[in-house]
Amino acid sequence: MAWSARQYVKFEDERTRPPRDLLAQVPLEHISRAVDLGCGPGNSTELLIERFGAAHVSGIDSDDDMLAAARVRLPYTSFTKADLATWRPDAPHDLFFANAVFQWLPEHMTIFERLMGHLRPGGVLAVQMPDNLDEPSHRAMRDTAADGPWAFRFAEPAVRRTVLPAPSVYYDRLKPHAARIDIWHTIYNHPMADHGAIVEWVKGSGLRPWLDRAGPDHRDGFLAAYRRRIEEAYPVLAGGGVLFRFPRLFIVAAR
Amino acid sequence: MAWSARQYVKFEDERTRPPRDLLAQVPLEHISRAVDLGCGPGNSTELLIERFGAAHVSGIDSDDDMLAAARVRLPYTSFTKADLATWRPDAPHDLFFANAVFQWLPEHMTIFERLMGHLRPGGVLAVQMPDNLDEPSHRAMRDTAADGPWAFRFAEPAVRRTVLPAPSVYYDRLKPHAARIDIWHTIYNHPMADHGAIVEWVKGSGLRPWLDRAGPDHRDGFLAAYRRRIEEAYPVLAGGGVLFRFPRLFIVAAR
Repeated sequence: MAWSARQYVKFEDERTRPPRDLLAQVPLEHISRAVDLGCGPGNSTELLIERFGAAHVSGIDSDDDMLAAARVRLPYTSFTKADLATWRPDAPHDLFFANAVFQWLPEHMTIFERLMGHLRPGGVLAVQMPDNLDEPSHRAMRDTAADGPWAFRFAEPAVRRTVLPAPSVYYDRLKPHAARIDIWHTIYNHPMADHGAIVEWVKGSGLRPWLDRAGPDHRDGFLAAYRRRIEEAYPVLAGGGVLFRFPRLFIVAAR
Repeated sequence: MAWSARQYVKFEDERTRPPRDLLAQVPLEHISRAVDLGCGPGNSTELLIERFGAAHVSGIDSDDDMLAAARVRLPYTSFTKADLATWRPDAPHDLFFANAVFQWLPEHMTIFERLMGHLRPGGVLAVQMPDNLDEPSHRAMRDTAADGPWAFRFAEPAVRRTVLPAPSVYYDRLKPHAARIDIWHTIYNHPMADHGAIVEWVKGSGLRPWLDRAGPDHRDGFLAAYRRRIEEAYPVLAGGGVLFRFPRLFIVAAR
């Protein structure tokens, strides 16, 4: 018996598992054109290149820092700045791959319908979105915002994210444009060393707009109050550490 | 662009996706001994053979009919009759693979602990169980049993299955025996042609003991009443058909 290095990495790196799980359900090979929508620093782009080859993969993102990081990571790949809300492909594609980006665009259903029209027959739209607004980690953001000296800064909503509709809603909207649709949720349970590790995780993603809105004068207070709520919400395991439950929605639609 | 035949099969055959998803997270290669626990007619055994080679894979099941079907399907593979509640491996193993069987053994946690002791260091226990007792498909079995001229036959529970405990419970029990544990749920949404297709699906699995208990005189009546409940519980999609929601629990524990 030997450990598979590739599988071992999968097992170790909690954060790359969702895009790997998504890509595993894309029924394509030998494609000519795939784009990583909302490519971020290029880690999901790298998965696409590993599977389909560098000549056929590009990435787009709206953030200059992310694009700079992606270009350092994958210097021979084309990365373009664009806003997904308005971006229109200039040629038919085989694959639109979108890992953890469309949750920031509440009007994404309309974008999906448009993207389906830019797929070659048999081409695939593959989407993964966190579906965690009802999780303790995200309820604690709203509760913390409402209960503290910073509450006046949250009179307007801090983030544009809205709760995702049920799978049947996506199914009904995509069906006229798709030959096959597969929609599922996976609820991961990430083992974390302690509550601080959960806070660190969300600081890099969902918590960021809340801290920005709290402002530099209230940032530390908000963070401390948030951490107390996380400590109450996630029970400590018998052997120490906590499980960070994380539901995600996956959509694979083939034209 | 071309379709990948292998991926295409994955996409087409809803029923083989759970064991494929489970196997994809098993971080092993070049193993010497794997066993498919509760192998049924051998379809999951075939996945193990595809991945690890026929020389290293065997299967066990408690049902003679299932074993006969498995032997026809894979004539060069060893299949043995055994009861998982009492079975003890006669040698250390690299992999115990259990697809959709341990939900029938409510005491499975104790069996998991015992199996971990029969793994080589680095060896893996990989388990998938339907976690659907609270789904409309299964609530309808209980509701139908309680409401009809057959109700007197259900004074004693018809099935031994109990609701699965939370992931943290499995995590706590397995942790002393495991170097790494990954536990997740996937909630599939299987597109079905109509409500009758859902009834057909569960007739081959979860509904069977209920029909047996209803008895030959009430079987047809029970089935018709059950179907009416399914029609009420699963809304028809805009383009016709229904989505059959199916949550499953996955555990991959490496010693």
